[in-house]
Amino acid sequence: MAEEVEVKARADPERIRRKLAELGAELVSVEEQEDVYFAHPCKDLFASDEALRLRAVGGKAELTYKGPRKPGSAKSRLEVTVLVSDAAAAEALLELLGFKEAVRVRKRRELYKLGDVEVALDTVEGLGAFVELESKGAPEERLAELLKLLGAGELVRETYAELVAKAASLPAGSGSA
Amino acid sequence: MAEEVEVKARADPERIRRKLAELGAELVSVEEQEDVYFAHPCKDLFASDEALRLRAVGGKAELTYKGPRKPGSAKSRLEVTVLVSDAAAAEALLELLGFKEAVRVRKRRELYKLGDVEVALDTVEGLGAFVELESKGAPEERLAELLKLLGAGELVRETYAELVAKAASLPAGSGSA
Repeated sequence: MAEEVEVKARADPERIRRKLAELGAELVSVEEQEDVYFAHPCKDLFASDEALRLRAVGGKAELTYKGPRKPGSAKSRLEVTVLVSDAAAAEALLELLGFKEAVRVRKRRELYKLGDVEVALDTVEGLGAFVELESKGAPEERLAELLKLLGAGELVRETYAELVAKAASLPAGSGSA
Repeated sequence: MAEEVEVKARADPERIRRKLAELGAELVSVEEQEDVYFAHPCKDLFASDEALRLRAVGGKAELTYKGPRKPGSAKSRLEVTVLVSDAAAAEALLELLGFKEAVRVRKRRELYKLGDVEVALDTVEGLGAFVELESKGAPEERLAELLKLLGAGELVRETYAELVAKAASLPAGSGSA
């Protein structure tokens, strides 16, 4: 169990990469991630601001419970994660218990390390590019300053799952010319 | 996912070990297992003859869903298992989702291999000794014959979880001299 502090913003990937290089950030990994968020069999996790996520990365998988976000522009919430041996079997097991797939988020994540801060540059299918900063120690203000320094765009409070769900519920043809 | 066929009977451990040696069975492992069975947050798994079990063995842990048993003296049911990295974190995650510990079963399991049959000689805390035969291929009749050949006692249809729950709900002092 861990308390994570996260801030996220829209980003221009080329600009962020250039800034990260200037600041001496170290590229840790590049991963294709597929996240499935589940609806609970008898509780509205959306209403209680909780989430159950199964993440598949390459052959590995992890199951994460996320507790309600605490107030503030940064995202601080309880997270409990276990690695699981097999994403498909874990999905089958959850469905047999009555959990149902609610949202699926696919993204390419470039992960950088900048001191004690993890910087994720994400390209999310259907949503575009974002930069997310996460730290166990740093205060929210420092993360917000670092976002500005990186030249990121507007702050985003919603999770990717919420943004994908919102995009999917737009009326057909809305916004198209 | 796999269909398992199992038969189980009360046993005299010394007698079973002697018979297994005569038949040329091979000792595979000796493990201390701790199983936690969970109550579902909104469904009576006991009534639907399903089960969710978290098994801790040494440092390893696995989470298993068991479907309803099919008719017959052998136990044939759907099982879906995933290995998890951390039993304590998995238990915390399940409890955050509303699952509650219902029964805890501790046992010492000696596992033998006899051809294509797995023979488990179990000493279960509070219940005594049992022998359990499991096979993916062998028909139920052959397993029942093998039980007889091993000199096992009466067949037991209930799971250990059911037997432990039953023992726990006996009125205080019942059966004591």
